[in-house]
Amino acid sequence: MGGDFGPRNIVQASIACLSATPSLHLTLVGQPSLLEDLLSGLSAADRARLQIVAASEVVGMDEKPSQALRGKPDSSMRVALELVRDGKAHACVSAGNTGALMALSRFVLKTLPGIDRPAMVAAIPTQAGYCQLLDLGANVDCTAQNLVEFAVMGSVAAQALGVNRPRVALLNIGTEDIKGNQQVKLAATLLQNARGLNYVGFVEGDGLYRGEADVVVCDGFVGNILLKSSEGLALMIAARIEKLFKGGVMSRLAGAVAMPLLKRLQADLAPARHNGASFLGLQGIVVKSHGSAGVQGLQSAIQRALIEIQENLPQRLHGRLEDLLP
Amino acid sequence: MGGDFGPRNIVQASIACLSATPSLHLTLVGQPSLLEDLLSGLSAADRARLQIVAASEVVGMDEKPSQALRGKPDSSMRVALELVRDGKAHACVSAGNTGALMALSRFVLKTLPGIDRPAMVAAIPTQAGYCQLLDLGANVDCTAQNLVEFAVMGSVAAQALGVNRPRVALLNIGTEDIKGNQQVKLAATLLQNARGLNYVGFVEGDGLYRGEADVVVCDGFVGNILLKSSEGLALMIAARIEKLFKGGVMSRLAGAVAMPLLKRLQADLAPARHNGASFLGLQGIVVKSHGSAGVQGLQSAIQRALIEIQENLPQRLHGRLEDLLP
Repeated sequence: MGGDFGPRNIVQASIACLSATPSLHLTLVGQPSLLEDLLSGLSAADRARLQIVAASEVVGMDEKPSQALRGKPDSSMRVALELVRDGKAHACVSAGNTGALMALSRFVLKTLPGIDRPAMVAAIPTQAGYCQLLDLGANVDCTAQNLVEFAVMGSVAAQALGVNRPRVALLNIGTEDIKGNQQVKLAATLLQNARGLNYVGFVEGDGLYRGEADVVVCDGFVGNILLKSSEGLALMIAARIEKLFKGGVMSRLAGAVAMPLLKRLQADLAPARHNGASFLGLQGIVVKSHGSAGVQGLQSAIQRALIEIQENLPQRLHGRLEDLLP
Repeated sequence: MGGDFGPRNIVQASIACLSATPSLHLTLVGQPSLLEDLLSGLSAADRARLQIVAASEVVGMDEKPSQALRGKPDSSMRVALELVRDGKAHACVSAGNTGALMALSRFVLKTLPGIDRPAMVAAIPTQAGYCQLLDLGANVDCTAQNLVEFAVMGSVAAQALGVNRPRVALLNIGTEDIKGNQQVKLAATLLQNARGLNYVGFVEGDGLYRGEADVVVCDGFVGNILLKSSEGLALMIAARIEKLFKGGVMSRLAGAVAMPLLKRLQADLAPARHNGASFLGLQGIVVKSHGSAGVQGLQSAIQRALIEIQENLPQRLHGRLEDLLP
């Protein structure tokens, strides 16, 4: 029921995913009459793999997490998470209020043993491939210990995605030991002593895009600013190039060559909007799609949830945490 | 004497500036014999407008600010700032250790009345023109009051650069009131009540590049990460497009059209490296060039100092602070 456009895009994405993935079963949680109306185009065969679970309340996009937690026992977000907790669903996908989703996820699903606060992670494109950046906004203020946990979780997630001995770095404003705030400096000391982790030190903002690490760790304030400013910059560059390419015949030819690449790059640079971001560290799978995600973005988020189900990500994390946490 | 390349690039930039600006007088501060060697190519006429002041010590790029402050009374950085303090120079330009330059600037020049901590500011390109982003790394941890001071200083600087009623925003991870860390939320409350300031609320990372504000305020950790990740992303996009344009005849034609724009955009997106960043809030002008700045970047930093001298920036700031600070 959440997100900037309510259930409309979510239902459309659900319909598309059901038809693309015959083994998929989906449960929509929300106001049944509203959802039924939006489902009118669905074939009977696909409709059989979709159920609706009623939830009478909706968490607003600017509602305080504490309000969603205490004041709305029957919100669609909460009911969806309870389905995961009770084994009635393998994963929860939401485009709703990030802070509320995190608070409710922690309360309903609980964190894995050894994890204080779950983190939000997404893959960011670099000159060398991708890096897993976390946290992306779920945890605004972080202790050094939180950052260490993010490092461990990011490392395990990167391994699950096929990276061998992922290089883990702390995002900082310099690479020398004396640089950074207290949390980052202390986290560096802790990570240097962490067993079984390929910690490679500090990485700066430009180093991230040069591909100096496979996992880049920061607090949620910094990660969110980095992610959104990157989106904004990619859009600005595309807009400037587009304008340039409207100049003359030659420019239009150049534009025809460059535009598809730029569009792909833009999508790549807005992972939360386009591909979904994962909550790591919970006893269950939760994928957050951007509040303003389009149908395709929501489809990607559902697909990401499917991959994490196949990879058994929470169980993998659980298995590795005891070895890795200092 | 500082910067990643020592005095070589600085001397070359000085020579270029002297020949380009006949009214300019420059003082190089450092080890005289080393500097004299590098000046061998200078004409006698230009040499007459350049003097060397001896300083026996050099602040290292990874030295702690406290060390530079207490342990090196005769560093080139400190002596240069003392020339400004004593009225023997109108501005100090350095490519050295940022933290040390800030600590020494505060100690030697003192802050303007009402300013707790000076900030580092540079102009960032946006879809609508430019915005002044501060702080860029001089202040890693900031209180709400620090952020308010940055807002006031950024507003005055933008006005000095010709922006009428500059729109001032706080960088945040959402635009709703409940978003952000404690400092940002408290700063918002203070700014809403600040007289004579055109405070427009929160701006997100993407909003910055959409041009939603003329002045964007954040702590130095966040600002530095944003600045450097933007540099890195612009480089990555340029590299990808360059690769694409090497494909065939048509692509190479397109590349010839697109490349000059991309190069200009890259330079634009690395203001600290290319144009110099200013310290605001001091009783004197200090311009910081990037440690790895090339000759052209250092020339721009010297030119930026010239503009600030012409605009009388510290005096302008001083005059406006009493009216603007809450």
